[in-house]
Amino acid sequence: MFSAISEREDALYLLDQRKLPGQEEWVRCPDLESVAEAIELMIVRGAPAIACAAAFGLSRFASDAAFDHMELAGFLPEFSSAVARLRRTRPTAVNLFHALDGAEKVLMELPPDQRSSRDFREALKNFSDFLFRSDFELCCAIGRHGSSLAFPGQKLNVMTHCNTGALATAGYGTALGVVRALYEKGSLGCVFVDETRPWLQGARLTAFELEKEGIPYILHTEAAAAYLMQTQKIDLIVVGADRIACNGDTANKIGTYALAVLAKYHKLRFVVAAPWSTFDPHSESGSAIKVEERPESEVLYFAGIRIAPDQAKAVNPSFDITPADLIDAIVTETGILEGNYREQIQRHFDQVNH
Amino acid sequence: MFSAISEREDALYLLDQRKLPGQEEWVRCPDLESVAEAIELMIVRGAPAIACAAAFGLSRFASDAAFDHMELAGFLPEFSSAVARLRRTRPTAVNLFHALDGAEKVLMELPPDQRSSRDFREALKNFSDFLFRSDFELCCAIGRHGSSLAFPGQKLNVMTHCNTGALATAGYGTALGVVRALYEKGSLGCVFVDETRPWLQGARLTAFELEKEGIPYILHTEAAAAYLMQTQKIDLIVVGADRIACNGDTANKIGTYALAVLAKYHKLRFVVAAPWSTFDPHSESGSAIKVEERPESEVLYFAGIRIAPDQAKAVNPSFDITPADLIDAIVTETGILEGNYREQIQRHFDQVNH
Repeated sequence: MFSAISEREDALYLLDQRKLPGQEEWVRCPDLESVAEAIELMIVRGAPAIACAAAFGLSRFASDAAFDHMELAGFLPEFSSAVARLRRTRPTAVNLFHALDGAEKVLMELPPDQRSSRDFREALKNFSDFLFRSDFELCCAIGRHGSSLAFPGQKLNVMTHCNTGALATAGYGTALGVVRALYEKGSLGCVFVDETRPWLQGARLTAFELEKEGIPYILHTEAAAAYLMQTQKIDLIVVGADRIACNGDTANKIGTYALAVLAKYHKLRFVVAAPWSTFDPHSESGSAIKVEERPESEVLYFAGIRIAPDQAKAVNPSFDITPADLIDAIVTETGILEGNYREQIQRHFDQVNH
Repeated sequence: MFSAISEREDALYLLDQRKLPGQEEWVRCPDLESVAEAIELMIVRGAPAIACAAAFGLSRFASDAAFDHMELAGFLPEFSSAVARLRRTRPTAVNLFHALDGAEKVLMELPPDQRSSRDFREALKNFSDFLFRSDFELCCAIGRHGSSLAFPGQKLNVMTHCNTGALATAGYGTALGVVRALYEKGSLGCVFVDETRPWLQGARLTAFELEKEGIPYILHTEAAAAYLMQTQKIDLIVVGADRIACNGDTANKIGTYALAVLAKYHKLRFVVAAPWSTFDPHSESGSAIKVEERPESEVLYFAGIRIAPDQAKAVNPSFDITPADLIDAIVTETGILEGNYREQIQRHFDQVNH
């Protein structure tokens, strides 16, 4: 199984996604701060992958020799600072916050006789390993459910946005997991890979993954997406999500919302694929979701070359919100949601909490 | 008046638009072939500017010493080859074909006693000078009419696509002429400049022009256009055109059609600005317009750096067709068309031909 996250004895290693596809370089993150910076700098990106990296970061933090003989009461304030540091890295993807909440819960629930430094090291290590393994399994389940979007014998031409593949998750991918599963079933025609400015996750990362697996794809600019829909080359649009509100409104990589509007206009199915960890019970609707503004330099420079005049200013929202009424289905690891999202999402949260 | 086209004694000089905004380099085109290549390589681009450059190219061709003592009958076959060479450069913008037709007509209509090499040199020189001067005046008229889109006291935030300014015309611009005129009238808030992949005409050229004139603007990726419309930052979208069919369907830079669909969804005015030379009496509707496919390398490389895997393939349509029903108005040098475009366009052609 291919993954861009590798936890080893001495450090967490992250495949530097800024340098793909030209160079395959692994960045060594021996401690919490280096993991936090790797998330900020987008060495690791993709909502589920960020969550996994953050959990491994906490596990590394706990293994610091400074805590060698500490009890939970002494350790907890330091741990809270570490969690707070990771919370500040990127604001939009909710999986990160779920993972941090989960890690805190694990520590708080340790029985009174298992609160030595050794115990919480082990607990955090088990938690991060579990998160990583289960993310991979969830992706496979999402792919399985999503592949039912094709009728038997049908070969779908699928447009996708950004990178939602093995590089964005523990492995296999969410929206790209659906693509993989369609391919494995013989139900895939061609993948239309949207280059995804300004970071070019489509051109650099999705193409890289599809190339590695021999899945047929063709690259295009975002400007050409509407033209490809108009000229009837596309059957289905599948994207991932960084946060899904209680009513189904979905925050995802900037450009997603445009594809959803275009899909509606062209009467094409627009589908979101994401694990339940992407759903946020605290966001009633999309308007509650904070959209990250990233540095304007991402728009003004390309590979160190300035592409605009010296005085130019740019706006660089990193995500947008797609309203639920533009989304035809949401594929999760437990099945496909369609119709009244609010009801189905509420039902899921009720089940989990009981 | 700023222009990217400069006709001098020894050659036609073109500002190399591939190198802006980093370098302001003029390319010397002493003969027909160098002008044709400059059009193909996009050293000069923009439908009206291409037409002007082609006309100057024919004028240069006629000034070749080889034709020194030739009569029209001997010159004409060579001239036809020269016209054919220019016709092959770029297929979508109709202004080029109108200019070439115009030059041919000028020669054919020379009176019997004015058919020496000196006469047709002069005729072609006058024709190209006239085309250039009148293009500038047309743009100013388009701007004047377009600026009436703002109510008195209103300050419009205008989104624009590609480059339709002084660099794309003899000077002043079409859609950017409207922006200029709004600014001169005090009716402009801010220009939202869409970067326009893959060639980045927005980031490189439109920003360069606006910067030179001190007009307030902000740059964004095409992915962010829908988000900016959704968050109510935009009042009006104005774009240029490479060819307008008899029913108002409009071919323009790839990405235009997406903006039109998005504008409709957000209930924003979507306006095309173009001179009558952009209208094509031979294209009944958009489906008759040939869309240029440009090399995939424009998508796969950026400034010589490959941004996709080595084996990646890309699709690179250079234009798209926006159906007339998505266009709220077409601003021409004689006024604003609204409602039934076919009728108004027919009336114009009838007037011109009588």
